[in-house]
This record gives sequence, C-alpha cells and structure tokens, in this order.
Amino acid sequence: MKHTENRVSDIQIAYIGGGSRGWAWGLMSDLAVEPSLSGTIKLYDIDHEAAYKNQVIGNKLTAKETSVGKWTYEAVDSLKEALTGADFVIISILPGTLEEMKSDVHTPETYGIYQSVGDTVGPGGFVRALRTIPMFEEIGSAIKNYSPKAWVINYTNPMTICVRTLYETFPDIKAFGCCHEVFGTQKLLIEMLGEEKGIKNIKREDIKVNVLGINHFTWLTKATYKDLNLMPIYKEFVSKYHKTGYLKAQDDNWLNNYFTSGNRVKFDLFDKYSSIAAAGDRHLAEFMPPWYLVSPETANDWHFTLTPVSWRIKNRQELIEKSNRLYEGQEEMELKETGEDGVKQIKALLGLSDLITNVNLPNTGQIPNLPLGAVVETNALFTAGQLHPVQAGPLPSNILPLINRHVANQENLIKAYREKDRQGLINTFRNDPLINLSPKDSLSLFETMTDNTKSYLPDWILK
Amino acid sequence: MKHTENRVSDIQIAYIGGGSRGWAWGLMSDLAVEPSLSGTIKLYDIDHEAAYKNQVIGNKLTAKETSVGKWTYEAVDSLKEALTGADFVIISILPGTLEEMKSDVHTPETYGIYQSVGDTVGPGGFVRALRTIPMFEEIGSAIKNYSPKAWVINYTNPMTICVRTLYETFPDIKAFGCCHEVFGTQKLLIEMLGEEKGIKNIKREDIKVNVLGINHFTWLTKATYKDLNLMPIYKEFVSKYHKTGYLKAQDDNWLNNYFTSGNRVKFDLFDKYSSIAAAGDRHLAEFMPPWYLVSPETANDWHFTLTPVSWRIKNRQELIEKSNRLYEGQEEMELKETGEDGVKQIKALLGLSDLITNVNLPNTGQIPNLPLGAVVETNALFTAGQLHPVQAGPLPSNILPLINRHVANQENLIKAYREKDRQGLINTFRNDPLINLSPKDSLSLFETMTDNTKSYLPDWILK
Amino acid sequence: MKHTENRVSDIQIAYIGGGSRGWAWGLMSDLAVEPSLSGTIKLYDIDHEAAYKNQVIGNKLTAKETSVGKWTYEAVDSLKEALTGADFVIISILPGTLEEMKSDVHTPETYGIYQSVGDTVGPGGFVRALRTIPMFEEIGSAIKNYSPKAWVINYTNPMTICVRTLYETFPDIKAFGCCHEVFGTQKLLIEMLGEEKGIKNIKREDIKVNVLGINHFTWLTKATYKDLNLMPIYKEFVSKYHKTGYLKAQDDNWLNNYFTSGNRVKFDLFDKYSSIAAAGDRHLAEFMPPWYLVSPETANDWHFTLTPVSWRIKNRQELIEKSNRLYEGQEEMELKETGEDGVKQIKALLGLSDLITNVNLPNTGQIPNLPLGAVVETNALFTAGQLHPVQAGPLPSNILPLINRHVANQENLIKAYREKDRQGLINTFRNDPLINLSPKDSLSLFETMTDNTKSYLPDWILK
Amino acid sequence: MKHTENRVSDIQIAYIGGGSRGWAWGLMSDLAVEPSLSGTIKLYDIDHEAAYKNQVIGNKLTAKETSVGKWTYEAVDSLKEALTGADFVIISILPGTLEEMKSDVHTPETYGIYQSVGDTVGPGGFVRALRTIPMFEEIGSAIKNYSPKAWVINYTNPMTICVRTLYETFPDIKAFGCCHEVFGTQKLLIEMLGEEKGIKNIKREDIKVNVLGINHFTWLTKATYKDLNLMPIYKEFVSKYHKTGYLKAQDDNWLNNYFTSGNRVKFDLFDKYSSIAAAGDRHLAEFMPPWYLVSPETANDWHFTLTPVSWRIKNRQELIEKSNRLYEGQEEMELKETGEDGVKQIKALLGLSDLITNVNLPNTGQIPNLPLGAVVETNALFTAGQLHPVQAGPLPSNILPLINRHVANQENLIKAYREKDRQGLINTFRNDPLINLSPKDSLSLFETMTDNTKSYLPDWILK
Repeated sequence: MKHTENRVSDIQIAYIGGGSRGWAWGLMSDLAVEPSLSGTIKLYDIDHEAAYKNQVIGNKLTAKETSVGKWTYEAVDSLKEALTGADFVIISILPGTLEEMKSDVHTPETYGIYQSVGDTVGPGGFVRALRTIPMFEEIGSAIKNYSPKAWVINYTNPMTICVRTLYETFPDIKAFGCCHEVFGTQKLLIEMLGEEKGIKNIKREDIKVNVLGINHFTWLTKATYKDLNLMPIYKEFVSKYHKTGYLKAQDDNWLNNYFTSGNRVKFDLFDKYSSIAAAGDRHLAEFMPPWYLVSPETANDWHFTLTPVSWRIKNRQELIEKSNRLYEGQEEMELKETGEDGVKQIKALLGLSDLITNVNLPNTGQIPNLPLGAVVETNALFTAGQLHPVQAGPLPSNILPLINRHVANQENLIKAYREKDRQGLINTFRNDPLINLSPKDSLSLFETMTDNTKSYLPDWILK
Repeated sequence: MKHTENRVSDIQIAYIGGGSRGWAWGLMSDLAVEPSLSGTIKLYDIDHEAAYKNQVIGNKLTAKETSVGKWTYEAVDSLKEALTGADFVIISILPGTLEEMKSDVHTPETYGIYQSVGDTVGPGGFVRALRTIPMFEEIGSAIKNYSPKAWVINYTNPMTICVRTLYETFPDIKAFGCCHEVFGTQKLLIEMLGEEKGIKNIKREDIKVNVLGINHFTWLTKATYKDLNLMPIYKEFVSKYHKTGYLKAQDDNWLNNYFTSGNRVKFDLFDKYSSIAAAGDRHLAEFMPPWYLVSPETANDWHFTLTPVSWRIKNRQELIEKSNRLYEGQEEMELKETGEDGVKQIKALLGLSDLITNVNLPNTGQIPNLPLGAVVETNALFTAGQLHPVQAGPLPSNILPLINRHVANQENLIKAYREKDRQGLINTFRNDPLINLSPKDSLSLFETMTDNTKSYLPDWILK
Repeated sequence: MKHTENRVSDIQIAYIGGGSRGWAWGLMSDLAVEPSLSGTIKLYDIDHEAAYKNQVIGNKLTAKETSVGKWTYEAVDSLKEALTGADFVIISILPGTLEEMKSDVHTPETYGIYQSVGDTVGPGGFVRALRTIPMFEEIGSAIKNYSPKAWVINYTNPMTICVRTLYETFPDIKAFGCCHEVFGTQKLLIEMLGEEKGIKNIKREDIKVNVLGINHFTWLTKATYKDLNLMPIYKEFVSKYHKTGYLKAQDDNWLNNYFTSGNRVKFDLFDKYSSIAAAGDRHLAEFMPPWYLVSPETANDWHFTLTPVSWRIKNRQELIEKSNRLYEGQEEMELKETGEDGVKQIKALLGLSDLITNVNLPNTGQIPNLPLGAVVETNALFTAGQLHPVQAGPLPSNILPLINRHVANQENLIKAYREKDRQGLINTFRNDPLINLSPKDSLSLFETMTDNTKSYLPDWILK
Repeated sequence: MKHTENRVSDIQIAYIGGGSRGWAWGLMSDLAVEPSLSGTIKLYDIDHEAAYKNQVIGNKLTAKETSVGKWTYEAVDSLKEALTGADFVIISILPGTLEEMKSDVHTPETYGIYQSVGDTVGPGGFVRALRTIPMFEEIGSAIKNYSPKAWVINYTNPMTICVRTLYETFPDIKAFGCCHEVFGTQKLLIEMLGEEKGIKNIKREDIKVNVLGINHFTWLTKATYKDLNLMPIYKEFVSKYHKTGYLKAQDDNWLNNYFTSGNRVKFDLFDKYSSIAAAGDRHLAEFMPPWYLVSPETANDWHFTLTPVSWRIKNRQELIEKSNRLYEGQEEMELKETGEDGVKQIKALLGLSDLITNVNLPNTGQIPNLPLGAVVETNALFTAGQLHPVQAGPLPSNILPLINRHVANQENLIKAYREKDRQGLINTFRNDPLINLSPKDSLSLFETMTDNTKSYLPDWILK
C-alpha cells in the first residue's frame, strides 16, 4: 500500500465468492465512486466463470471516465493466489447451492415450520451452518497461511457461525462481520422523526444508536438524534402503528428492495420488551418462538412474507443474465453508493477517517452479560489500523434469555461439529425455538434435512 | 444452647408452617430417635389449631419412653414469638390453599398444558411463586428482626424462589433449601448396582454424586461407589430399561410413596444428554419442552402420572383425621427415621459430625457457568457453624441452555415482582418451556390464573 | 436548551470550584472561541469572591466582539443554586488549601519519601483523598437532588477517587473524569514522527491510541498514524533517547508549561514493559516503587523535578494578581483554544459531532482484567446524549500487577472510609509502593499527616 | 486394584523423588500402620542409589510383624517404569541440589535480602521455580503418556509453580498439592482453647477452618470448634501474646521439629488484617514486604530464625547416615503416624471414607476474587474417585492485594518461562515484595543468581 496525503493506492483486496453477483457489484460501485482508494481486487470463486465475468465487468467500470476510484480486477484460480499479499479479504459466498437452500427453507414446512429467510437460525440456518463451517475452516486456515495480517470482512450468512469459525480456526485473525440490517431501523427512525416531529433530511449516520445482540437479532437500548431521546417518541409511534404497520420506511437499496415489511413484528417486540428490535421483521420472526410464523398467513397478518427459494432461483437467473449483459457491454453498471459500510470501514482502517458502525466480533466484554468469546453484534470503532468494540452494556433482563438461547445454540453447534458429536448436534437442533416438535419428529426432520445436503457433510453427521 | 461432650441441649427451633402435617411429623420422628439433641420447638402456623395439635402430638411423642431425643413442643401465636431466640428456623408452608393449587395445576389444562406436579415451574409453579414471594418477604424480614443469626432451613416450594426471596430480603441470612429428590436417584443407583454387579446393602450415603443444577432439575455429572465409576454402568442400565422403565427403585419414604414412576424420563434424558437427571420424573418432565407432557396419556406412556389436586385434597383430609387420632391418642406416631437430612444437617452445623449433602444456595461460583447470585443446587459441606458449597464445576454444554432458561425465568420473575413490572411477569411467563402458546393465549391464561389467586396478589398484577 | 441547525443555545453549566482560576479561564477561553454553543454558567466556589471575580472576568470576555461563543457568567451562593437546571456540571476544586497540600507533599520527605506531584497516589495522594471523599459525597448528593440528569465532568484530583465517590454516592450519575495527560504523549509521538519519518503538521487527534489503565498511570498498547504502526518506531526512538532524554516534545499548553521532563521515565518503562506509558513522567514515577524517586537528585537524573508546594503558593499569588487585573480590566484575557477536550465533549454529548477521547469511568468491561466497578481510564465514544467506553482489551500481563495494586488501594481506601475502618486505611496506606517503610514508621507518618489535615477529617481517622 | 469390603489391595503407587528421605519414610510409616491398604510402591529418583536403599528400607518395614499395611517397594530406573500402571503418583523432589539452594537463600543476603526458607517466593523461591518448571514439564508429560488416569500428589516446593506447571503441561491431569502448614495453626488453636477455655484433648480435625489463599500464604476467615466461634477467642489470645509470642503450640512432627517460632508474625498479621494467617511464621514473613526480614536480628525479634542451608546440608548428611543404618539394619524405623494427610487422601479417593482437607488446585471459582486457573489453596472434598474444592468465598479486601501480587508473579513467571521472555522474568522478579531494590541492583542479583544455577537453566535466561 502507498499512503499519500489522504489517499491510499496499491491496496490489495481478495474477494472470496461474489459469483452471486449482487454484493460484488455493490462493492465495485462503491469503490468506483470513492476517490481516495485504488488498487487491485483478486476475485476468487469456485465458479471460476463467474469470477472471470466479474473481472471483465469490474475493469469496464474502472475504465469509465466517471469512475473516480480506479481498481484492477483479476480473477484467480486459488484461495492462495487471492490471499497472498492481500490487505483486505472480503468473504461473500453461498454455502452450497440454491438447491440445498430449497431444502433448508422448505423441508421444515412439511412439519409445519415456516421460515421467512432460512439462513440464520431455525432448521434452515442450522443446516446451512453445517455446510458453512468446513468452508470457513478452510478459508480461515488459508488466511492464516497466506495473509495473516489482512483485515477480513465477512458478509456470508449465518454470520455468527462464519465469524466464530474463523476465530476458532485462526485466533489471531483480524476478522469482523458486517450486516446492514440495523440501517433499516435507523431509516425507520428518520421516517418517524419526519412524521412525528417534522424534521427532514436527517442522515442515517446522525441517528445514534446503541446496538447489542447477535446478528439478525440485534436490539437498540438507546437511540438519540442531537438532543432528542428517540425512545419515548418511538413508543408513541408504535402505539399509533402497532396494528396497521408502517410501510413507508422501506429500504430502497437495490440489493434488497424485494424484502418489504410493515414493521409490525418490530412494533410488537417493542410493545413487549421496551427496546427496539433492530433487524428486519423477516429475520426477527425466526429468532422467536413461532408466534409470527405459525403459517404463511400468520406472517402476512404481521405484514411480511416468506421468501420462497424459487424466487431466489429466478432472481439468480436474472442476475446471471444481467451479468452477461454487463460482460458483453450490452448494459452499463450504474455508479451509485449502495449505502453499505464496507468502503467506509476500509477507509477508516486505513486511517482516512474514523467510523463508528455495528459489526460482529467475539465478545470481549462489550456485552457483559453474554458469554465471552461468543460472536456478538455491537458498535465498534474503526480507526487507523485498529478496531475496538464499543461497550454496549448489558442486555435488558427480559431480552437476555431470548438471546442467550441462540448464543448457546450457536456455541454448541460449533462445539458439536468440531467434536464430531452427532447427539450434540441433535440436542442443539431441538433447542431452536422454531423447532417446536416432539423429539421423534425433530430427529426425523434433522435426518431428512442433513440427507438433503449430504454431499457437503461429513459421514458422522449422517445416519 | 448447651454443648456437652457430643450432645447439645437447649436448642431452640422455630417451625414455620407444618400445619400440613407430613413434614412436621417426619421431623418429630427424626428428632425423637436422635439421642444427641434436645430442646424446644416453637410451632407457628397461620392455622393455629393445626400448630396446637402438633404441639400435643409432639409432646406425646417426647413422653414416650422409646423417644431418645427429648423435645418440648410449643405452639405460638406470632412469627415474632416463634423466631425470638431461635437457633434454627424451619420453613415448610403451603403458599395459599389447595383451592389455589387446583387452579395452578388444572387451569392450564384448558389450554392443553399438563403438569405432573405444578409447584415449581410451568404455569402452576409461576403463579404459586407469585403467592409465595410476599410470604417469604415477610418471613425474611421477621428473621432479620428476631433471629438474624439463626440457620434457616426451607422445605417450601417453589424452592428456588423461596430461597432467593429470603436472600433478597435479608442478604446476611444463613438460609438454605433442602430437597430429597436426589436421594431417589441414589437409591436407583443402588438398585442398579445390585442388579448389574450383585452388590448388596449399599447405604445411600455411599453413592457419591456430583450434583448440579437447580432444584427439581438437578443433574449428576459424576457418580461413584468406592472404586466404581457408575456412569458407564448406568449407560448399560439405561439401554436395558429405556423402553420398559424400571420400577423397583421406588422411594418408599412414607412421605411420598404415592409418587412412583418407571424412570423412563430420567433414562431418556440420559440417552440424550449423557448426564444423570437427578430429580424424579414428575419434576423433570415439567422443566423440558412438552415432550413428556403432551397429554396425560403421554405421561403414562413415559410411566408416570399427573398428580391431581383432588388427590391432595383427599390426602389432606386423611392427614387431618390422622392428626386428630394422634392428638386424641387413638393412634401413636411411629418412631422411625425418614431418611431426610434435616436432623443430620442440624447436627453438622452444631459441630457433632460433618455432612456433605445437596442443598439450594445462592451461586457464589459453585456452578461457574450459571449467574452469580442465582439460587442453585449442589452439594455443600455442613460443619461446625459453617456451610460451604462444594464446587460442582460447569454444567455440560448441552444441559446449560435448558437450565439457563429457567434460571433467567426465576431471576426475572423475582425482579419483575419487586419492580412491579407486569409486562416483565408476562414476558417471563411466556418464556417457560411448558407454556407453548401464542402470545394471545398465554396472556389470557396468565390473566385467568392470576385472577384465580387474586386474594394473594397485589393489584398491579391483576388486569 | 434549544437546538437549532448545528447550534445549541440556552445551555446551563454549573461550575463547581474554579476559584483557583487556571482551569476556569481555560474553559472560558475555549467557550468564547466556539461558535456553536451559548448559555449561562453558574459559578459556585466556597471562595465566593473568587467566583464573583470570575463572573466579571467571564462576562467581560463575552462582551468582546471577537468572542463568538456568548455566555453569561453568574456567581451563585450555593451548590443548590448552581446545580438546579444544569445541563452540565463541571467540578474543579482544590480539596483543602495549599497549606494542607504542603503537608501532603513535604511531610513524607522526613521519612525519605519524595513525591513529584503528590496529588494522586503515594502518601500525599492518599491523604488528599481522605479530604476529598466527603466533599465529593456532598457534591454527588447535591447532583442527585438538583440535577440528576446532568452530565458531570470532573477535573479534580485524585481523579479516580473523585469519580468513584460520585458513583458510590449516586449510582445513576452521568459522570466522567477528564485528564489531558495522554495528550502529551500523543504530542511526543508527533515529534517522533517528524524526527524519524520526516512527517510534519500532524494533528494530535490523528495519532490514534488505545489507552488503558488508571488516571495518571495510563498505557498505550496500540498507537497508529494512518497506515503506520508507531510501536516499532517508538522502540527505535526510545533506544536513541533512553539515556539522554528527549526534551522537545513539551506540552506548551499555558496551563502547565511549568512541568517539563525529558521523558526518561516513559522511555525506561517502555524498555521494561514494551507498552507506552501515557501520563507525564512526574505522575508515572509516583505509581512505581521508589525507583525514580529515591531523592530529588534521582529525579533530576531521570530528567524531571519535584514540584514544591511553595511554587504552587507563589503561582497562586500570581494568578490572584492576574485575576485582579482581569477583573479590573487592566489586562485582557487572551482568546485561544487550550487544547483541552472539555468543550468538544460537550458538543459531542449535544449531538453536534462525535468524539473519541480518553476519560475515567467505572469499569463495565472495557478493561476485562481489572475489577468491574473500579474507575479506569480508556477511550470513550461521546455521541448525542450517549457516552460509551471503547473496549481497550486486557492490560498486558506484566503491567497488570502494577496497576492492580493501585486499583486495590483505591477501592480499599474508599471502602475503609465508608465503613469508618481506620485499620483498613492504615493497611491501604502501607500497600502504596512509595510508602516503603516499616510498619512503625508508616503508622507514624499516617498519624502525622492526618493530624496535619485534621480539620477536614472525621474523628475516627485521627488517633 | 482390588476392592473388598473396606480394604483395597494391589494399589500401585509411583513415588518420584524421595531420595531426600524424610518425606518418603513418613509415607512408609503412615502406610505401615494403615490396615486397609496394600500394594506396590515404585520408587524413582535421579539418585538411583537412594531409591534402592529406600526399597530395602521399605521392604524391611513391611516385613515387620507390627506393620499392618503391607507394601512391596521396588526401585525402578525410569519415570516410565515408575508411572506405567500407577494408580497414584507422589512427587517429592529436590529441584537441583543443596548447592543451588545455598545460592537461592544466601546470595540475596549480599543485597540485604534475608529469607527464612527461600523455597517459595522471594528471590530464592523465584530461582528455584526456574529450575523446577522444566522438571515438572517432564514429569507432567510422562504422566500424560504413562499414567493419565492416576491421581497425582505433589509435595515439592515451590508448590504453586509445581502444580500449575503440571496442569499447563497436561490439562486433564488429576493433580493436587499437599502442605501441612495449616495443621500447625489448627494445633495453635487447640492450645488456645486449652488455655482460654480449659478444653482439653481436642483432635486437630475437629478445629474446622475455612482456608483460603495460596500455598504458604493461606488465611483462615472462619474457625470453629463445635458451637464455638474461635475468632473472638483468638483476638483475645493475640492481644495477650502479641508482644511475648506463644511458644507452646509447636509442631512436634519429627519432619520439621527444627522449625519453631513464637507466632509473633501470625499474631501481628491478625492484628492488622483480622484474619488468621495459617502458614508458619517463617513462610508468612517471606510473602510480606521486608517488615519481618530486615535482618536476621529482626527475625529474631519476631521470634523466628532464618534456616541456613548449611543446616540443611548437615541434616541431609545425618539422614544419609540414618538411611545407611536403616538399610544395614543397624536401626529400625519407628512405626508412627506422621499426622500428614497423604494416606487419608488416598483412602478417601479410594472410597474408604470422605475427607475434607486443604489442598492446592487450580481456581475454578473456590476463591471468586482470584483469577480462574491460578493455583490456590482451599479445603477440598476427597471422596470415592472424586476431588472437589470447597467454596471458600472471597478473600477479605485488605488481604486480597497482598495475595494478588504473588498470584500475578506466579502466573507471570510461568508465562514468561513458556514464552522464553527474559524481560518478563526480570519484571516479575522485581515485583516480589522482598526484592526491594533499585532496577540496577535487582538485575544484577537476577544475573548472579541465575548464573549460580545455570546448569539447570536454558540459555535464553542467562545473560
């Protein structure tokens, strides 16, 4: 890397995955509009063709006159090539294919278990985790060998499992996990301030929140805007929209504009627990007992929908087609900030400007009533070459057991995997709040689901 | 008190409750056969007549020539009178009447929730706790005022809530909670050794167990007899009797010989979690999700039965009649050790002989992976004027979340009660694994049940 | 308060103390050059005349055309008046008079104990703490009664004792303690970068440091500037200047330009402990065993001097004279930023711009290997209405016992004071590393010193 | 092993060391008078001749008619031979020779540092630890390989370092460290009860104490005998004998009858800290600042003497001569219980009878305010195949920093050794309270002392 006055050049980024297009293009776009950084991005994907197409697409973008951030994209053939010399590593993979995800999401429906996303907790998140752990063990080992000093940014789900596995595999890794779910809630609070207080043009960054919990099940215990304490205002707002939902505050980020909700789950959780649930309703619902997910209709009553994997398959096809058009030059990539924090984090770690944002890191005390070592989500300070969690304080007593249950499951899942303890896996599977089945049925579901993903699993897990 | 060589006389015991007869008579009998102790027992019960009859019955027992332990029984009219000057306080009350218990146990059945006991956790235990807390606040305050140096032995359920409330009310109290549930498992292990190894005439005390957990949901991580590690033997035993149950090892203590089970729940839990669940099946089943309590039939399939409160009412009537006969002299109390540890604990605390046995105490580190301060059950060392928990080590990782959930509920129940936080109570009620209902139904059950016990509750809890 | 676009008016600040002039004038100056804030400052000092003169001086400053921050100064007669309605409280008092300080600093010299400052630890800091605790109990109670929601900024020494006492007295207080000692080390690192790397014009804020420890005994485990890791550069720098000292990097803040040193203590500590001691040498020397303070000559060998209280008395006289001149209008206050963070902290808490800086707060986990509750110094995030420590990570293992000893002493001093435990005070006094005396001599010193300050102490401390 | 009714035969014990005779003969004698145990003892010592003579001496003892415990003694040539098949391992070695110990004890005298024992802390204990760690790494590894299930009893000093190293080397080891120092204080309390209360013939085991701290620096926070709280009685006793000392209560165990003291250090510590220091004065004095060890005369004023290594050399010669006489049959070993707990511990672990006694074990919470993992001394429950610490509760606040300093030193010494961190060793050396020297002198002492023991040390420690 070369630092000059407020600019850094010759940065080397390894991008692992990204063949699924969306995230990679977002990053390309964010980098292209950022004038202070430049360098090389090594693209590695098990789908080499996808990586190669991204190389061409990325370099076309760089060639545009309007691109102020100039990057060279280069598809490589191995993790080793991608990582060697990397200053930053970005991991954004799909663990398995959408065929496996179809089983994750829809097989449990035969037992009356409905999932709105299916990639974090619940039976779908659990089985996805089983596929993911060995992949992240491999990536973690490769980082240890080829780029031990690099900053590692993970976007892959299940986030907690991914980050925890990286630290298990290589304890000195400088890894963190990023997720934009909290941003949506900041935007909702902006809408609220417009509606309740007539304040306009608030920037997301100016909604100051104290975030704590685990990925996709984060909570805000404090939210302020300048001199305003937003908690009592939100209380009013919730009482107004609890029944009808509130639709305006949708995230219009092109990455996920499909996924709207009326925030009724978020409002209902506030009503019960007096803190603001920070993730989107589709995620929140999966962490609770099946209150909001009794059936697709219940979900609709709560103003959100279950995302079928068929949609993802169709969407993927569209992305492949778009990829081809971009590759062939039939379409041009739009230059536009995504609102994601990735590039800001890189700038902050390079010493160009401090950043406070929420990330996933092992708990070293930032949430004093969760176990040390478990991966948690709070704010952190990104500053020149340093990353420090911000102390979030303890989880409120009524929220604590809800989160502790998932923390125990995530810890036990990884422990059982590493110890090859099949019964431990089954015990953990059964402790998920969505898996509200008799032991017989939960075992049978476990066996069907692991069988459906068996090409990714070691033998000892299979019956 | 007066200590002479291996004898202590002039001991003063306050017995709070006991009108329900069973436990009081057990203690009388144990004291009468113990030659090294004598003194006075002040009986206090809100049912003064019951206390008075116990006075007469007790003094008749003392008058018997065969009674080697000579005690004067004296019914008193107030907590103050009972406590002033007491060296030991024994608390064994019924919180409310059997009418309230009928609601605790049977109202939830209208929502498909079945309880085998209904006095510890589950909806019944929860509502019973609400009645109990103020009673124990009153008793704790009275002890603080009238007998702050006395040792306090609690037998009342819900045990954890009772002991925790005493310490909340008077942090310097020297209280502990006793429960004989673990003894049954020691006896089962004796039966097992007879059957599997041909060893006979083993004393319960010689089955050395490492107990840990919370009352009625305790586990053994170690069990030894002389040079034998009992865990692998138990594994064999479980595989033999998992399906059929094992009926011989019944507790024939006259206090609870009604309550037989085939130990199938215990065996099933071992099969899943590799530690020995130590309480009786009827209690264990209530701490788990409704796996063993889907219906009365499910319970029967698992070889245990739900105790109807009607039986308790009938049994109570029989005890009253027996009480009258004893009082009138138409019947004589049998002199016989109950197998309970109460008298041994008193002897140990008086310095007559050390004792290791399981009790309920605030966690000061004896179970390092449960929260400090929560009331937990482990072994403890009773010795002259000192009581120290024995370090039990951490709960196994798969059992931890099962117990942590109840610990959080118990802590939050007391917190919400003390802070008059109705929503906190409802949140906690909903987090009980047996209360597997929609939020709407759980609220409705909460309201019905609290209404049924409303004469014991403060207004803010009621709708 | 009134918030408008990037400005806050009608702020009310209570300034407790400040009669000693220096700190108060610094704040006045910083406020006068800050355009985004305005309001009223209530000045309360037990020396009412000093407060009144500051009122006049402050209002003169406000009247100057060049003052862009407009504040009304108002001397008041009671804590109650000062605090009622306050948004911020600033505490900067002298606990006792310079006569008492003379005893703190110089009495121990008769036992061969030399102190370079005498206001934090060592015998001087200890006895000063005894005078300070009741004052801060009074201030804490008044804040609880009159301005419980105010942010409270303490500048008084002994810092740790002051902040800890405020939290002991009023646990919900929003107090923190500020100290500029770390800034000097950041400036030293700037000098170093100029010298070693030829980098010029670095702003202090761009030297990113991970601060941890206790006030005046803080350490940096990380220091970065943009992409540079400053630790290996500092290692070189230390090896170059270890023997000769390095004099250029002096703090030229007018508040403390008297107090120069050659940084030899700081360099020697780095040599031994591999982290950068962050406070000034005069403070650092007092926390260690008497390695650097065997005698005034030893101190001089290490390139620092002992500040005699006679200098403070003389300096005070000069300040009083200057005060009179400012009051009379014979001299004008210079408008100039002091480099202190106080005004920036206020702005950040008002939501005008985030700030990361080092402060003293109770440990809630920011230093996981120090006791929870003890007051520690680390970075913290100041943001709209919120203050959160930044996780600093554990103290390095060789530094830990050095700090732990002082933490124990500070905790035990307060505990013994609150429990009126004279022997506890003496035990703690003896555990100070500078008090390297026989028990007989340390007792005699304790008695002499407490006698010298007896008008500020309760009877039970005196012999 | 073979268990029959209350007897265990075919026990195999590995005895590592013991060539120094005293401890080995004590064990032989204790085993010979114990009827319930028998088996084989494999003797391994680097001085093979000593081991062989002990074989002959032991077998002669077994041959005596009056010996009721029959053991076969067998000298072996390697650790492997000794350990293979062992049920118990006893470690009692001299780390280095008395020549090295001479340097440990007497070299510091040239710097004015006097040590009464020199084997635990202080400069002597520190350097002895450096020699000991590699020996215990070797023993720990051998146990891991050859007898991983054996119970391991250590008698070697420095106790804490030995036990900690065993657990560092083999975390699953079942090791504990035994020390009889606390017994002397129990005997002193018996004397006191005789004198103050006229109670006679009290058995040591009936003085119930709550022990906590680290080896040779243990404290009693509770002491009871039957219904008597001994603390107020001891307070009286101390005030009576503080000045004159109390000589009667001497340990007349033949193993250490040389080492008398007047208990004045113990009394003085009680006077200051209100708990009973439990180790002997000669050990206690070394853990404190040089209050009691300014000079040999100071020690004498406090009624104890410094043990010169010349005495140990002479004593050793006498033991060798006695050994020869025993070996030749010119003298017979006396059959007599030593009062040590070793054989009782073995019996308890074999399930023959429970035992509560003080031992050294890693802290898993038994002392909640000391770091987890550090080796601490508290009571523990020995029962069939199980060993559990008894919860001792927190150290009193004034004693905590005294002990924490040594705990940090012990932890840091081992850490620095394992990380080959010479500066870390020197930092730790300097943090010892007895090493009250300038950095220059402490470095010079460190270098001289390590040079004196260099044949036992790795090169990186030497200059």
